[in-house]
Amino acid sequence: MEPTSRRLRLLISYDGHPFRGWQSQADGRGVQDHLEAAFARLCGGERLPVHGSGRTDTGVHALGQVAHVDVPATRLAPEQWRAALNAHLVPKLRVLECRWARPGFHARFDAKGKVYRYRLWNGPVFPPLELGRAWHVPVRLDAALLREAAQILTGRHDFRAFSASRGRGQDPADTVRHLGRIGVTGKPGGLIALTFEGEGFLYKMVRLLTGSVVYCAQGKAPASWLSELLDPRNAPAKTSHAAPAEGLALVRVRY
Amino acid sequence: MEPTSRRLRLLISYDGHPFRGWQSQADGRGVQDHLEAAFARLCGGERLPVHGSGRTDTGVHALGQVAHVDVPATRLAPEQWRAALNAHLVPKLRVLECRWARPGFHARFDAKGKVYRYRLWNGPVFPPLELGRAWHVPVRLDAALLREAAQILTGRHDFRAFSASRGRGQDPADTVRHLGRIGVTGKPGGLIALTFEGEGFLYKMVRLLTGSVVYCAQGKAPASWLSELLDPRNAPAKTSHAAPAEGLALVRVRY
Repeated sequence: MEPTSRRLRLLISYDGHPFRGWQSQADGRGVQDHLEAAFARLCGGERLPVHGSGRTDTGVHALGQVAHVDVPATRLAPEQWRAALNAHLVPKLRVLECRWARPGFHARFDAKGKVYRYRLWNGPVFPPLELGRAWHVPVRLDAALLREAAQILTGRHDFRAFSASRGRGQDPADTVRHLGRIGVTGKPGGLIALTFEGEGFLYKMVRLLTGSVVYCAQGKAPASWLSELLDPRNAPAKTSHAAPAEGLALVRVRY
Repeated sequence: MEPTSRRLRLLISYDGHPFRGWQSQADGRGVQDHLEAAFARLCGGERLPVHGSGRTDTGVHALGQVAHVDVPATRLAPEQWRAALNAHLVPKLRVLECRWARPGFHARFDAKGKVYRYRLWNGPVFPPLELGRAWHVPVRLDAALLREAAQILTGRHDFRAFSASRGRGQDPADTVRHLGRIGVTGKPGGLIALTFEGEGFLYKMVRLLTGSVVYCAQGKAPASWLSELLDPRNAPAKTSHAAPAEGLALVRVRY
């Protein structure tokens, strides 16, 4: 007997601006809603749940979000699914690649790590072509402090000080994460990109890390403040210096 | 006696999308109109003409347009002019730098050359974050043909086949230009950038060059077609393959 459905794996990119994050919303403005609406139009109104690797916040971009969805077994090849989906999606949301998933593949549970990139413009005037794609930090940063701060945060730590509470989907007691790398490219006076690679991230963690690193690199707090925030004996200390969403992009999900 | 005015030199960047090009327009939507309106608000309604290095078309971006303007001699320092102007401009138009011009400086007549960059995305799906910043060319280009075409066009030629007629400001008999370099970065399957460096460019020349190079690199015409278009004996042959405005940016003006 032929199987009645087959699992598609999608590589997705979006400009976060027009969406209310990845997650389905009551008003239908989540990226997930847009994808599920496109599948419904292609499948006679049937609602197929689209499972992402994880959420992205309102306004956060994605260069390589991954999702899976079980589609009715038809003769459509993956490239045909891709073309048909893109024909029903707004241009700010695109399926870059489409292929059959290996048996049992799950976009969220199989994810082994993620790469995020935070872009900021560190100069007095914000270049118009960076609008919506970077955070404007006019005060000149100290490059040595920036690297020192990034160094302190790298490794396995309890990142509870760098997380925002979320209704569900995150165990408040499980806030230890391994942050494999914070890469710093560019330099003060121009575009600076921070690349975060880790096995998993807490809610708003990358934006809170970026905001706190920038706070230190502006000389507003010593780098030791970050060490204190990581020290589990100091809980429930929190940082509230979250960098804005528009500078952040989910670059890649590792499997 | 104190001079009554002083010449400011501006370095300007804009996202071309909301503007009807550099040049003043009857509807006030030219970049020049926006700048002159900002000066008028800062100078009690006085209209100060802003002279640019040259025009850019509707939708074309600028990373480094240059202009000069004679301002009333006040105690404002150039950085104060910059801040005041930016406070009165929309975020998609910014004065990046402001300084006193050397005596006799003229943004247009003193320009010794310009650098333009054309960005195109050469893959089946257009990434959302490239919207408005690149041209989507889905058919895979041939990298060798691309470089060959760029090579043919480099040098001193009569580029009349690669120009659009314009009401004024360009002598139709003077269409010989020296194109110093067409740099090609990136590769088929992703982002490709063509960098044009020359002493001067005809109206729509960069977009017509780009469109024609891409036409060749798609295998639709042999590279020899470009040589024929450059041959003055073949005038008035024309190419109509203009690449769209949103992929083009004026990068720098050389003085």
